[in-house]
Amino acid sequence: MLESSQQSGQSLAQQVANKIESLIKEQRYKTGDKLPNEFELATELTVGRGTIREAIKLLAARNVVVIQRGKGTFVSKTPGITEDPLGLSFISDKKRLSSDLMDVRVMIEPEIAKLAAENATSEEVEQMEKICDEIATLIHANENHETKDIELHSAIAKSSKNVVVPSLIPIIQTAISLFINLTNRSLKEETIETHRQIVEAIKNKDGEAAKKAMQRHLGYNKEELNL
Amino acid sequence: MLESSQQSGQSLAQQVANKIESLIKEQRYKTGDKLPNEFELATELTVGRGTIREAIKLLAARNVVVIQRGKGTFVSKTPGITEDPLGLSFISDKKRLSSDLMDVRVMIEPEIAKLAAENATSEEVEQMEKICDEIATLIHANENHETKDIELHSAIAKSSKNVVVPSLIPIIQTAISLFINLTNRSLKEETIETHRQIVEAIKNKDGEAAKKAMQRHLGYNKEELNL
Repeated sequence: MLESSQQSGQSLAQQVANKIESLIKEQRYKTGDKLPNEFELATELTVGRGTIREAIKLLAARNVVVIQRGKGTFVSKTPGITEDPLGLSFISDKKRLSSDLMDVRVMIEPEIAKLAAENATSEEVEQMEKICDEIATLIHANENHETKDIELHSAIAKSSKNVVVPSLIPIIQTAISLFINLTNRSLKEETIETHRQIVEAIKNKDGEAAKKAMQRHLGYNKEELNL
Repeated sequence: MLESSQQSGQSLAQQVANKIESLIKEQRYKTGDKLPNEFELATELTVGRGTIREAIKLLAARNVVVIQRGKGTFVSKTPGITEDPLGLSFISDKKRLSSDLMDVRVMIEPEIAKLAAENATSEEVEQMEKICDEIATLIHANENHETKDIELHSAIAKSSKNVVVPSLIPIIQTAISLFINLTNRSLKEETIETHRQIVEAIKNKDGEAAKKAMQRHLGYNKEELNL
């Protein structure tokens, strides 16, 4: 099974990692599933347990699988998406990077809000409204709402039904919040208000209004963050 | 140096990998640089050579470094960007995926073409014109022009001076060409023509014309590829 790729100069562990990765891609093991243990994998793939262990480490380095000590190895919930998939942390000018990331959000998210207005289910809208309330509570309690903020934008992206953007938006938004200081935010009431306008427009299935509300929201953010 | 992260439950190899990664981020080793050999790294980081070897493999799995047999280990030209950073190959509906990827291109690339019109240098425009000619030659010779096509869109993205999009565009475009059959392309003269219109508008520093030309170009492609 593994002979042909031997010629490619890959180590045996890398070949075994590729094989396990294909089994995941063929849906034999699905997102969140526990993989068979080392012994079982070694028997099935006819290699030593040391090779299996090394292969699993390579897959964990790319977040294809997650090793939980004492529990076993599981298929990642976001397989193949590493913590910093676009290598953004290697770009040294963080101010410039944050500004350019925000520009990418401005290109993508208004169109995504429009698609969300066309495709969101009523359950998804309810969930968004709940997150809006939670963000308002956090802001009024002067607590950090960044995680919930990312959750809201991810929920909107997911409800658009585009299969790519729900991976992309949290990556970009998380990167911005990592690279710049978000503690000194002034326009908090505007955040609450513009979030609600976006969700309201999605609820009303008004694509153009959702798009414009998202543009306004990101416009406020860009200004507020001095980007 | 490595004690504090010991508590996080990471293996020693992973900690050493993180340390080498920080040295790269701090620009001690730059893109394309050769890393010190195993012995030197082991001495500096006061760990065994086996640990260094394992750490290097973890970094190679995420394309932070590239191991060239017999030559040494080098900092990747695109550090941290794996072959499939968005885990797209794990999405099983490839037709849907390709269509949604094309939608993301339609959101980003017209705005990027506009920025390119504002920011491209005359050398960059010359390079784009050269690639347009090469694509025309390939198409007329009935040869595959996909690599050159990606090169042109990447050159436009780079000339926009946004630091994020030049990583994003080739990822998306390569994924589309991987997942769908591009051999049966009909609108080849339109490809040549619309590419030239985009570059012409960038050359004339006409942002709106560049944006519209890119919209037309991607519109043709979307139709042509039946997405």
